[in-house]
Amino acid sequence: MSRESCSIGLLGLGTVGTAFHELLGRRADEIEAICERRPRIDGVLRRSEGDFEEILARADIVVELIGGTEPAREYVLRALEAGKHVVSANKQLIAQHGDELFAAARAAGVQLRFEAAVAGVVPVIRVISESLAGTEMTRVFGIVNGTTNFILTEMANTGATYASALERAQELGYAEADPTDDITGADAAAKMAILARLAFHTPVNLADVTFEGIAEIQPDDIAYARDLGLSLKLLGVAERVGGGISVRVFPCFLYRGHPLAPVEGPFNAVMVEAPAITEITMSGPGAGGTETATAVLGDVVSILSGDAPVHEPRERLDVVRDISSAFYLHLEVADRHGVLAQIADVLGRNEVSVRSVVQRGLGNDARLVMVMHEGPESRFDAALEEIASLDFLRAAPRAIRVIEEEFV
Amino acid sequence: MSRESCSIGLLGLGTVGTAFHELLGRRADEIEAICERRPRIDGVLRRSEGDFEEILARADIVVELIGGTEPAREYVLRALEAGKHVVSANKQLIAQHGDELFAAARAAGVQLRFEAAVAGVVPVIRVISESLAGTEMTRVFGIVNGTTNFILTEMANTGATYASALERAQELGYAEADPTDDITGADAAAKMAILARLAFHTPVNLADVTFEGIAEIQPDDIAYARDLGLSLKLLGVAERVGGGISVRVFPCFLYRGHPLAPVEGPFNAVMVEAPAITEITMSGPGAGGTETATAVLGDVVSILSGDAPVHEPRERLDVVRDISSAFYLHLEVADRHGVLAQIADVLGRNEVSVRSVVQRGLGNDARLVMVMHEGPESRFDAALEEIASLDFLRAAPRAIRVIEEEFV
Repeated sequence: MSRESCSIGLLGLGTVGTAFHELLGRRADEIEAICERRPRIDGVLRRSEGDFEEILARADIVVELIGGTEPAREYVLRALEAGKHVVSANKQLIAQHGDELFAAARAAGVQLRFEAAVAGVVPVIRVISESLAGTEMTRVFGIVNGTTNFILTEMANTGATYASALERAQELGYAEADPTDDITGADAAAKMAILARLAFHTPVNLADVTFEGIAEIQPDDIAYARDLGLSLKLLGVAERVGGGISVRVFPCFLYRGHPLAPVEGPFNAVMVEAPAITEITMSGPGAGGTETATAVLGDVVSILSGDAPVHEPRERLDVVRDISSAFYLHLEVADRHGVLAQIADVLGRNEVSVRSVVQRGLGNDARLVMVMHEGPESRFDAALEEIASLDFLRAAPRAIRVIEEEFV
Repeated sequence: MSRESCSIGLLGLGTVGTAFHELLGRRADEIEAICERRPRIDGVLRRSEGDFEEILARADIVVELIGGTEPAREYVLRALEAGKHVVSANKQLIAQHGDELFAAARAAGVQLRFEAAVAGVVPVIRVISESLAGTEMTRVFGIVNGTTNFILTEMANTGATYASALERAQELGYAEADPTDDITGADAAAKMAILARLAFHTPVNLADVTFEGIAEIQPDDIAYARDLGLSLKLLGVAERVGGGISVRVFPCFLYRGHPLAPVEGPFNAVMVEAPAITEITMSGPGAGGTETATAVLGDVVSILSGDAPVHEPRERLDVVRDISSAFYLHLEVADRHGVLAQIADVLGRNEVSVRSVVQRGLGNDARLVMVMHEGPESRFDAALEEIASLDFLRAAPRAIRVIEEEFV
């Protein structure tokens, strides 16, 4: 591999392939700065275009984004045997042919990376294979299929039937025209086979994974369960049981306090448990072209940077001091007319906008608890200084920031 | 570095150093299988014992767990200059002397890894430096100090004052005898300086980080805010603002729907935002000897495995089929006396224990919604088969698994 540039052979130019091609072009300068090598796509294989042998001969890294098992398996195996590093986003390939491919990578002394194959950009492969390699993992479980999580969320939030929630998922692009692999649990089963193999260092085949899907779920099951404080998820579990393991996928109710209960829509989340660390939870978008392409590019960066990324500053960014914040404000005030009006006047003149006000207590115990909308801190500070000097204040005002944002 | 073994020079034998020493001994076989090299501690430096020069001469990897800036800085610098890889858990060292140390690592072509310096075993460094290196991060924020999060959780849950919550944290070992660095926000500020540097590729010094602590927080602020649906956290934020950045630590209220709102006790959680990926959230135990030692060992594994870990099965574990589950059971029944008794009898005979029952509807719409306690699936399956044959059932029973566990 030359120190100046690195040739990437791209197999497949579907949604993820196109997003990867575009992302790599846009981020090449950044990656060169991190890795001290510039990645460049030097050959694309599509059904109608490109020659695999030529692409293979030129490539330093082969990126496989074709999907399915053949010819993806043959291409990846050939690339590894030819001493090329491979990055793949193909869960079925890794789940079904992992043994053969890992052996080929070991024999050739090259890397086979596949972060995007499970939970998209949520770095569960890297965490299990590297961060936690020093600990004995007892269980890996979570929501690893965004399509079914979207459907279950839709059913819970709108009372929709399974069929109409699926239709909605298809309209929004969260489900394929043929959603069989997702809704039967087969897609999640392949991902759990990969996670079980990595966490427990044991060969796990797809046939070892029992799975159930969500097509039988009724809206009233979700409604009744909600009354009991339960929400429904399609869960994948890989765990040590006695001296063996169990790997399975099944729809499942969770109590509200469970860390996976709030994971909604197309998001994925994975928890890893080990005695030494209690548990780690990771969540984020599980699929989507850009997200998957980002995970693939992360693998390319890991290969390019060889041992570890260099942390060399690339620019000096200014530190901005007057940022924008929302505030909670606690005021102990004399209990008399006009107090709120005067405070509102100070806030208004300083362009600080009030979101909510609660008056508490009476007489010597009267206090105002207010929450402001977000705005420049300098304006709030100016208002606060004025308020602090008002004669009806019985104690110094107390202000604490508030994060207003709503999250998915 | 020999292919057979790898010498580790351990600097420091406090809580983390002792835990690391013990963990490495216990996991050496596993690590040798993953990395094809066996790590072994070959020299320990303590205040009262050991000679740095001798340890350095023998080491392939130097693990710095002394803490503080001197002599840690001098030792780490010397090790890097001597061509040794270094793993450190020292946030102040990286935050204050990162420029110098990264430059030395680059010049010598060796690795400097420090996953344990921020959020313990939560792999935020690895994710920002590698997984997301291909994307433009806009914001990194979260709860990066477990001591203050424990104190704020205790205040919220018990109404305790700051002073008594701190005392409780000290009793439980979540706060040091001198908690100044934690409660003033200085510890979180050092961690945010590191994260900002890595996410934005710009030199960030501790002086660039504004920080506020939690010592002024009053119990009634927490109580009033709870009425408004808010919970209080000490938040670290590093973000792009205009063409610059802002890095700051401050106590802050979050609305209930915020992903960081449920993070309680000594746990840490970090979110990374980028347009291409929406957001990733990672959480787990932020500190503790074993947890930090696990993160340090993960870094050692990354160095030992060179490019990427090999995924070679080490043993073949049995797949266990009759695992233990809790179930939700939905039964459409005729509305007559004795129905519940008969069902309870079937469940009882099969040793399936009922957690809750709700009767819904009347007459032709009558149904029982039950949640069972966890037990072997084979027993529940047997009970279900019997129940399905009862003559008062108007439709096939519907069963869905339930996760019962409570989480921290």
